[in-house]
Amino acid sequence: MTEYFEDYRVGARRVTSGRTITETDIVIHAGHTGDFFPHHVDAEFARQTQFGQRIAHGTMTFSIGIGLTASQINPVAFTYGYDKLRFPKPVFIGDTLRTRVTIKEKQEDPKRPAHGRVVEACEVLNQRDEVVMYCEHILLASKRP
Amino acid sequence: MTEYFEDYRVGARRVTSGRTITETDIVIHAGHTGDFFPHHVDAEFARQTQFGQRIAHGTMTFSIGIGLTASQINPVAFTYGYDKLRFPKPVFIGDTLRTRVTIKEKQEDPKRPAHGRVVEACEVLNQRDEVVMYCEHILLASKRP
Amino acid sequence: MTEYFEDYRVGARRVTSGRTITETDIVIHAGHTGDFFPHHVDAEFARQTQFGQRIAHGTMTFSIGIGLTASQINPVAFTYGYDKLRFPKPVFIGDTLRTRVTIKEKQEDPKRPAHGRVVEACEVLNQRDEVVMYCEHILLASKRP
Amino acid sequence: MTEYFEDYRVGARRVTSGRTITETDIVIHAGHTGDFFPHHVDAEFARQTQFGQRIAHGTMTFSIGIGLTASQINPVAFTYGYDKLRFPKPVFIGDTLRTRVTIKEKQEDPKRPAHGRVVEACEVLNQRDEVVMYCEHILLASKRP
Amino acid sequence: MTEYFEDYRVGARRVTSGRTITETDIVIHAGHTGDFFPHHVDAEFARQTQFGQRIAHGTMTFSIGIGLTASQINPVAFTYGYDKLRFPKPVFIGDTLRTRVTIKEKQEDPKRPAHGRVVEACEVLNQRDEVVMYCEHILLASKRP
Amino acid sequence: MTEYFEDYRVGARRVTSGRTITETDIVIHAGHTGDFFPHHVDAEFARQTQFGQRIAHGTMTFSIGIGLTASQINPVAFTYGYDKLRFPKPVFIGDTLRTRVTIKEKQEDPKRPAHGRVVEACEVLNQRDEVVMYCEHILLASKRP
Repeated sequence: MTEYFEDYRVGARRVTSGRTITETDIVIHAGHTGDFFPHHVDAEFARQTQFGQRIAHGTMTFSIGIGLTASQINPVAFTYGYDKLRFPKPVFIGDTLRTRVTIKEKQEDPKRPAHGRVVEACEVLNQRDEVVMYCEHILLASKRP
Repeated sequence: MTEYFEDYRVGARRVTSGRTITETDIVIHAGHTGDFFPHHVDAEFARQTQFGQRIAHGTMTFSIGIGLTASQINPVAFTYGYDKLRFPKPVFIGDTLRTRVTIKEKQEDPKRPAHGRVVEACEVLNQRDEVVMYCEHILLASKRP
Repeated sequence: MTEYFEDYRVGARRVTSGRTITETDIVIHAGHTGDFFPHHVDAEFARQTQFGQRIAHGTMTFSIGIGLTASQINPVAFTYGYDKLRFPKPVFIGDTLRTRVTIKEKQEDPKRPAHGRVVEACEVLNQRDEVVMYCEHILLASKRP
Repeated sequence: MTEYFEDYRVGARRVTSGRTITETDIVIHAGHTGDFFPHHVDAEFARQTQFGQRIAHGTMTFSIGIGLTASQINPVAFTYGYDKLRFPKPVFIGDTLRTRVTIKEKQEDPKRPAHGRVVEACEVLNQRDEVVMYCEHILLASKRP
Repeated sequence: MTEYFEDYRVGARRVTSGRTITETDIVIHAGHTGDFFPHHVDAEFARQTQFGQRIAHGTMTFSIGIGLTASQINPVAFTYGYDKLRFPKPVFIGDTLRTRVTIKEKQEDPKRPAHGRVVEACEVLNQRDEVVMYCEHILLASKRP
Repeated sequence: MTEYFEDYRVGARRVTSGRTITETDIVIHAGHTGDFFPHHVDAEFARQTQFGQRIAHGTMTFSIGIGLTASQINPVAFTYGYDKLRFPKPVFIGDTLRTRVTIKEKQEDPKRPAHGRVVEACEVLNQRDEVVMYCEHILLASKRP
C-alpha cells in the first residue's frame, strides 16, 4: 500500500488487533535476548517486588508493540529511528496489548529533499486502555515523484 | 552489584561479550513479534533490495543489543526509557554484535530528589567495529542514603 | 518396520500416546505460521466468541495430530496426500489429544502397478473421547517384490 | 474486511507475500510436532534418498502455506475443512514459498440456509513457480442479511 | 514395552536413528539454558579457538543424545541417575549424531529388593563413528512379580 | 575472570540467581530433545502417576541447573565431565530453581602436569531449599604459569 509523504495526514489514527502476552512470550524473549533478570523469570523473587509478580521485558513490549503494527507495508517509506521510548506501566502475564498509531507531525528533511519525515506516536495499550508503552516512530517517506 | 547515582562516572565504558546473529534469530524474532516483512523473511525479495540479502529487524537488534548488557544487575537503578534509537547500518545474518556502553551524562531528576538520571550511550558494534545501532538508555539510580 | 501393501489389514487400528495442548503450543504455532488471528492469540477477543476462550489453529491440530503418529517409520510407504480434513470440535488450551488410526481401505493404484493405495482414517480425540479432527491419510505402499 | 457469500467471485485470485523456508523452520516444526523422521532431521540419511537432502514436513508446508493467507480476516466466514491436500513436489531448505488463492466454486449448503460454501483452491508455489502443495479450503460464509 | 529386570541381557545393544545438529539447535539451547558462552554463540571468538568454530554445549549433546533413546517406554523402569558423563570430542554444527546403547551390567539393589539396577552405556556417535559423548545411565527396573 | 588451579579454595561456595520452571520450558525441552514421554507432556497420564502432575525432564533440570552457573567464564578452565548425576526429587511446573556450587576437592591430574582437576559439587535447589538435582562437575584448570 504505497503512501507518499504527501499522503500522510496529521491526526490520522489506527489501532491494531490485540495480542495476549503469555508466560511463553516472556520465556522466549529471555532466551532470545539472554536477559534472565529475576524480575522476568523468577516468580519467587518477583513476588517480593512492588509489582508482586513477573513483568515483561521492556524490549519485548517494544518488539511486540511495534510488531503489531506490521500488518501493512509501505514500499516508499522506511524507519529512521525511534524517540522518547517510555514504559509508564508494567506489563504482566495475561495482559492483552494493542497499539494505537497516530500521525503526530510531518517535517521536511533538510538533508534529503526527495523525502520527508513522518512522526508516528505509538501507544501500546492494555485491556484497561492504560498506556503501557509510548514511543515516536520516525519514518522517512518519499515525496510524490 | 549495587551502584548508587554517585558511583556512576561520566566517561566510564564497558564492552559486552559478542553474539553472532543467525538466521535462526531472525526466524524466531519474526515469529515472536509477528513481523514477517519480506526484508526479513523472503530471501528472493531481499536479493532485489539495495542490501542484496535479508536484514535483521530493528526491534531485534535493539532487543539483543540491550540484552547483551544484561549480565549485571544493579538493584538500586531501573530503566526510565530510551532516546534517539537509530540504526545507522543494516545487520546481516552472520554478523557478530557486541554492545559498548558509555556513561554519557548524569542529571538531577527534578521530580524525584532521592534519584538521579544516568544516561548510558549504547552502541551496538558489528565485527568490523561499525556502529549498527545507537541509543541512549536513561536510568534512574537511587542516591546514596 | 517394513510393511508392504499386502501387509496392511483393513480394520486394523492403533492409538498413539497423548499430548496436552498448551498455551505454549499455540504461541509457537502462531509464530511458526504467522497466523495471529485473534481467535488464537487475543484472550479478550476470544472471551466474546461462542467458545469463550482461545482455540487452537486447525493447522496445529493437524500437525500435532499427525505428528503423534510419527513414532514408527515404514520405509516402503510414503504419503500421497490427505482428504476430508475436518474439525468437528474446537481444541482448547489444556486439552489432551491422541490419534486413532484405522486402516479404512486399500486400492490398486492404476498408474503405479508396483504400489497400492492405503487409506488411513485418522481421528484426533480429546480427553473426553470426542473427535476434534478427522482426515483420511492416503499412503502409497510398495507391493511385496 | 467483511465479505458475504454473495461477495465472493468465482475466479478471483490473490497471491500472498513470500517466505523462505529455513533449516530453523524444519527444526522448529520437528520439535513442535514430535516428527523427527530422518527425511527431515538427518542430513546423512537424506543425502542417500532420491532428493539428496532434507525435505520439509508436509504438515509444515500446509501450516505455513495456509498461514501466509492469514493476513486478512473475514468476520462472517469460517473454515469448514480442507480437501485434496497434495504435495506434488518436495520443499527444500532455502525454497521461498507464497500461496496463490483462487475462488474455485460456490455452493449452497443444504443444512445451513443462512450460509454458503466457498471453495478456495490454494496453491503453494516455490521460487520457480512450481506447485509444491495443493488443497481446497472450504469456507462457510454468511449470506447477506 | 514392558521389560523386567530379568529381561535385560548384558551385552544387548541398540542404535537410535540419527539427527543433524544445526545452528538452530545451538541457538535454541543457549536461549533455553541461558548459557551464551562465546564458544557456542560468537563465531568470531570461536574462529580463534583450537576448534576454529562454534561448538555445541555439553548439556545439549547430553540432552539430545539421551533424547534420541526416548523412542520406547518401559513402564516398569525409571532413571536413577547418570555416571561418568564425558565429552571426548567436540560437536560441530552439521554433525549428525546417533546414540548406541549397550547393557553394560546388572546389579542387585541392596535397598530395594523388588528392583534391580541396570547400567546402560550410552555412546553418542557422530557421522564418522567417533564417540563424542559417553555416559552410564543407571535404571532401576522392577523384578518380575 | 581468570582463576588458576591454585586459586580455587576447597569449601568456597556460590549460589546463582533463580529461575522459575514453566510449562513453556517443558514444551520447549520436549521439542528440543524429541522426548515426548507422557510423564512430561500428557497431563491426563501424569494425573495418574505418583506425582499427580507433569514433571520436568531430568536432562532439562541438568541443562538449566548448569546453565544457571554460566554467568562467569574462566578462560583457563574447561569442563572434563560430570559424575554422580542424581535427581532426588521431581521438578514441577512453577518450581523456582537455583544452583549452589561448592568446591569439593582439588586433585593433581596424572596425565596433565600443567593442569589440575577441580571438583565442583552442584546442587540444584527448589523454592523449599530441597535438592532436586546433584552432580559433580569436574573442571580442568591450568596451573599458574
